[in-house]
Amino acid sequence: MSPAAERVMARADALAAISESPDALTRVYLSAQHLQANQLVGQWMSQAGMTVWQDSVGNICGRYEGEREGARAVLLGSHLDTVRNAGRYDGMLGVLTAIEVVDSLHQRGIRLAQAIEIVGFGDEEGTRFGITLLGSRGLTGTWPEGWLETCDAGGVSVAQAMVQAGLDPSRVALAARHQDDFSACLELHIEQGPCLEQEGLALGVVEAINGARRLNCRFIGEAGHAGTVPMNHRKDALAAAAEWMMQVENATLQHGGNLVATVGELRCFPGAVNVIPGEVALSLDIRGPQDAPLDALLGELLLQAQSIAARRGMHFAAEEFYRIAATPCDTRLQRLLGEAVESVQGRSLSLPSGAGHDTIALAERWPVGMLFVRCKGGISHHPAESVMAEDVALAIEAFGLAVTSLASI
Amino acid sequence: MSPAAERVMARADALAAISESPDALTRVYLSAQHLQANQLVGQWMSQAGMTVWQDSVGNICGRYEGEREGARAVLLGSHLDTVRNAGRYDGMLGVLTAIEVVDSLHQRGIRLAQAIEIVGFGDEEGTRFGITLLGSRGLTGTWPEGWLETCDAGGVSVAQAMVQAGLDPSRVALAARHQDDFSACLELHIEQGPCLEQEGLALGVVEAINGARRLNCRFIGEAGHAGTVPMNHRKDALAAAAEWMMQVENATLQHGGNLVATVGELRCFPGAVNVIPGEVALSLDIRGPQDAPLDALLGELLLQAQSIAARRGMHFAAEEFYRIAATPCDTRLQRLLGEAVESVQGRSLSLPSGAGHDTIALAERWPVGMLFVRCKGGISHHPAESVMAEDVALAIEAFGLAVTSLASI
Repeated sequence: MSPAAERVMARADALAAISESPDALTRVYLSAQHLQANQLVGQWMSQAGMTVWQDSVGNICGRYEGEREGARAVLLGSHLDTVRNAGRYDGMLGVLTAIEVVDSLHQRGIRLAQAIEIVGFGDEEGTRFGITLLGSRGLTGTWPEGWLETCDAGGVSVAQAMVQAGLDPSRVALAARHQDDFSACLELHIEQGPCLEQEGLALGVVEAINGARRLNCRFIGEAGHAGTVPMNHRKDALAAAAEWMMQVENATLQHGGNLVATVGELRCFPGAVNVIPGEVALSLDIRGPQDAPLDALLGELLLQAQSIAARRGMHFAAEEFYRIAATPCDTRLQRLLGEAVESVQGRSLSLPSGAGHDTIALAERWPVGMLFVRCKGGISHHPAESVMAEDVALAIEAFGLAVTSLASI
Repeated sequence: MSPAAERVMARADALAAISESPDALTRVYLSAQHLQANQLVGQWMSQAGMTVWQDSVGNICGRYEGEREGARAVLLGSHLDTVRNAGRYDGMLGVLTAIEVVDSLHQRGIRLAQAIEIVGFGDEEGTRFGITLLGSRGLTGTWPEGWLETCDAGGVSVAQAMVQAGLDPSRVALAARHQDDFSACLELHIEQGPCLEQEGLALGVVEAINGARRLNCRFIGEAGHAGTVPMNHRKDALAAAAEWMMQVENATLQHGGNLVATVGELRCFPGAVNVIPGEVALSLDIRGPQDAPLDALLGELLLQAQSIAARRGMHFAAEEFYRIAATPCDTRLQRLLGEAVESVQGRSLSLPSGAGHDTIALAERWPVGMLFVRCKGGISHHPAESVMAEDVALAIEAFGLAVTSLASI
């Protein structure tokens, strides 16, 4: 077994012990646990031969210098914060494997043309303040106005929490990095989905972080007595919704292209066993690696809903309440990662990321690439989150190949 | 306009004023309003030449003697209690039109071979105690053990409420009537459904009171991240439920035979916009005028659900929590009512009753028949319940013809 992989597994366990509650891993932005994790990760970075600092928004940063002082760097980063009752690999695995990649160069006394920087982002999940990507948006210098005033559930603002953590809210902008600082950003992350497991592969390369649209939809028919209204006189809003949900599933399946569509929530009004539903409210979540096909499918689905409603003498309405554009990964970085993955596991798999990542923010400024590692059952955001040490060994190897190749020019 | 119909409309208004709340008609069993309504209806019965009494469970009863004292009687009955915030015709219309039928005979000095009895039942809806048909089950002598101890929301038992209303709970059994007392029972009632309105008819004849089954059903799949689980790897419980609901609608429509099936309630677990539903709980309410086709359709639907679940790698479970057998109406009484309806409106329509009625209880002992009167939009159990005086005029005429013909032999 690879000692590097064993060390990553042990360090993930050590980080998992830094939690606001002993029996449910929870580590949020600007908490005592955040600072404690930064300190530990900073020590590991130092041991790997890196210069270490905490930036002005609370990210822990390390730099392994290139052949010449002040060279451009390849940035490797992921996050150290967690959701509530989290798993121990989501975010952390990307930071820990990056440290191993650098440590391996350091042990062998190798300096590359470019430097390597690692950032452990302080907030990606948004668990504490309900706003996300605070760490990576510190690096891009794109904190929106108002973030400092945003409060947590206890009424503590980001600015107040920064002061409590020994940070100066007036210095947030100093975390921003120049476009020229980095040639590329690579993030290694657990897949948080079942594709690699079902393909029997440890590693895969992300083609894009899915764009998403979320809508609140409503079929409005006519409530009626379940016993007295004949089938052919009904305007059953739930029957209309059922017909549409079948089309959502079928059309999305037929469309392919890694598009997914989900009705996750549905409520009937009035919602009684003996009353024909007069109204149904349902959510639609639709995602895909490219915005154009995503919007085309969404348009098609909404037309189908209108047509079902019209045929049944009902009304259909939909309101989009959330939209995020797709983040395509850089083609060159995808190819580079793909070659590295092929060389360690025989073949690679290109797949979209269904969840969001720090890479979404970084992509606004630098070319981005992502490497996915298989996780058990696709489970994430849950204590049962699990990766295999053998997969981590392959991940370190492939990540090391890609980073070395990238930083050598 | 028929003076009899006008009087029925006015009397329905007068009864609607007897309510526990001034702005929402509510009149429940053994309340002060119940006794007050009994008194008023008793006066109207007396004016129609009937002997009047209140029986030992609180039904108001009237008898219009036949040619010879103590003759068998045709029983005309419906209920005087209401749901909360009720309409003014559900139940009451049957009592008021029956009084007009008798009054017409009385005015003309006509005695028939058989007597005519009218009962205004004290409880059909079950609004106060949650148990139904207390009035008609008084006549059939089939109050189950335990009814006297059943309590209302305020903790008052039926027995205590009887005492408060001046009734003696130990005398409940005296309300029971002999099988020989009645040759037939006829109930006139508003349709509480849209069929007559959509056929453009004032009156129709009930073929049967629908049997019903109610089930709690459950599809158990696998929850998952709406962004990371590809369409073809999902075990989406809501998609399975949607597929089944389409089959429920289609199979029931195709089956015909006045069967109806309704999914009125549906809940998703965990029920979040970004989570594939791992489990869906839904109700099924299925009704029809005959038990055998009803059970056949239900069996078919459950098999389809099992097969959908199996194909999708899920689990399906269903539990019946309510079952009532169909109550067929007497063939001879249907024919008699049909002829009467044809003679007043040109043609008749045979239709099932989707809702329950006192007739369900009476059918255990005597041949039963029901005449339906069109109500606006099929609306019932609502203040907007509405019937037209012209329809009531036709109803009195047809009901009179049928009752006279029946009681003349």
